Amino acid sequence: MLNILFSAQPDRWDEYEAPLNAAFTKAGLTANLSCDHDPETVDYIVFAPNGPVADFSPYTKTKAVMSLWAGVETVVDNPTLTQPLCRLVDNSLTSGMVEWVTGHSLRHHLGIDAHITKQDGIWRDSIFPPVAKHRPVTILGIGALGAACGQALHNLGFPVTGWSRSAKDIPNIRCLHGQEGLIKALTGAEIVILLLPQTPETENILNRDTLALLARGAFIINPGRGPLIDDDALIDALDSGQVAHATLDVFRTEPLPSANPFWAHPQVTVTPHIASTTRPETAAEVIAENIARGEAGDPFLYVADRSLGY
Amino acid sequence: MLNILFSAQPDRWDEYEAPLNAAFTKAGLTANLSCDHDPETVDYIVFAPNGPVADFSPYTKTKAVMSLWAGVETVVDNPTLTQPLCRLVDNSLTSGMVEWVTGHSLRHHLGIDAHITKQDGIWRDSIFPPVAKHRPVTILGIGALGAACGQALHNLGFPVTGWSRSAKDIPNIRCLHGQEGLIKALTGAEIVILLLPQTPETENILNRDTLALLARGAFIINPGRGPLIDDDALIDALDSGQVAHATLDVFRTEPLPSANPFWAHPQVTVTPHIASTTRPETAAEVIAENIARGEAGDPFLYVADRSLGY
Repeated sequence: MLNILFSAQPDRWDEYEAPLNAAFTKAGLTANLSCDHDPETVDYIVFAPNGPVADFSPYTKTKAVMSLWAGVETVVDNPTLTQPLCRLVDNSLTSGMVEWVTGHSLRHHLGIDAHITKQDGIWRDSIFPPVAKHRPVTILGIGALGAACGQALHNLGFPVTGWSRSAKDIPNIRCLHGQEGLIKALTGAEIVILLLPQTPETENILNRDTLALLARGAFIINPGRGPLIDDDALIDALDSGQVAHATLDVFRTEPLPSANPFWAHPQVTVTPHIASTTRPETAAEVIAENIARGEAGDPFLYVADRSLGY
Repeated sequence: MLNILFSAQPDRWDEYEAPLNAAFTKAGLTANLSCDHDPETVDYIVFAPNGPVADFSPYTKTKAVMSLWAGVETVVDNPTLTQPLCRLVDNSLTSGMVEWVTGHSLRHHLGIDAHITKQDGIWRDSIFPPVAKHRPVTILGIGALGAACGQALHNLGFPVTGWSRSAKDIPNIRCLHGQEGLIKALTGAEIVILLLPQTPETENILNRDTLALLARGAFIINPGRGPLIDDDALIDALDSGQVAHATLDVFRTEPLPSANPFWAHPQVTVTPHIASTTRPETAAEVIAENIARGEAGDPFLYVADRSLGY
């Protein structure tokens, strides 16, 4: 029986208790998960940096600290932490992003909103979308996430253009780069997906000038970073019909204040920064599998390197 | 200059004129498309069985009749038709079905409706779906369309089970068959997609007993045939919460009468038999490419065989 301490903010217990116990069982571990073990009896700590444990010195028997967060910068140089600290490396973050981007791309492509909001008893069978091969999609930012989304959209038949600052070569994606490439990538695009990092060069990359390049009635999907878009220019483009709809998951201020005009705009869908989020089920599996490795005598995965700080 | 006669119901002209002319140009054809050529000057007829032309004998110079419909049963044995009759074989029908099924599957998986209908300024970032690999999907009917949908959903990470009357073996799909297989395929399924043909055996295949097998709060997606579902049993399952939502593209009576309770039910989305429909753009391309073959001296594709009747 392993004593596993759960040390995170209290509201996380309700989210994680069942998934962690399920994952322990699935990994063949017999575990007593609690928020309340005597420190000297604890085998493993499931840990969030904003939870109750700050001093690791009483945890003399603890074999490893399993972070619930990918980032460990606030704990990695805690001098009382002598046990291995394992980061949460959740490969399902990419899956989640691909699902969200593909789902909202298809939603706009198929015109699903009209079917959801206008169930008025009128059979409009002459209104249907083109097939995906006639709907050009442009992804700004073709790192790991952008490339995975591009591949998924290619698999569904969309012609996919990707843009990055420097040249890339990715199968099934028409790769463009640089300032001239940006103009070419956006000209005539019907769906634009933003997955760029936030840098001084990418801030407001969608602005009055670049929004004007898109096909009239284009769709904007932003699961990247809020400042990639000039918000005022976007609202003007929505109001003029140049952009038909924007689905935004990220904002300059988060949580997005309830008075922000995006919430009430009929052509904007706000989602609360959930496009790519760690799910308790998948986090629990990653943690359980890592504990099982330790119990089997294998080295832990994802151990933070104190000298590097991550 | 080819004289091409457009013979279909008048409202189709507005839909097809521009796509056909664009496709002719793309195929390198110089064409004069009109509803009004002198019969003896016509090179090709773009034809729907419910249009004005019923007697082909004046069309002495016409090289082929290009049907706008896949089905040609009402014209194939017209005794005046001596020219080759080409069926419309539109490979994009499968793409359209895959897009519609994948789009509505992701819509339900991601809980997109709540984001569309409840933009109330409250930032609910602790509500998010599982990743696709934790969302079992079952497809009843794994012919060409069902298998293509299953592959697309597998590519996105969903565990896909397919059911058919007789045994099949399709990569990436857990294939089950027969009555015992049906129970196994439906038990615990969270998304069920209906793509079976309509036969006495498949009628009401989703009924009180089989709906009870699904995971509580499952989603039903029917782009197959209306009679596959016992409508009253579905409404009861929606009202009890056993089924969270049904998205239906096909019905026992089409157009679905405006008084049908499906239109007004808050957990039902009606779409007007558009999951797989011939688009003017793709139909125009198929027709233009076939005419270009004829002009280049190649045999026409998809020529109906009068002895077979299709």
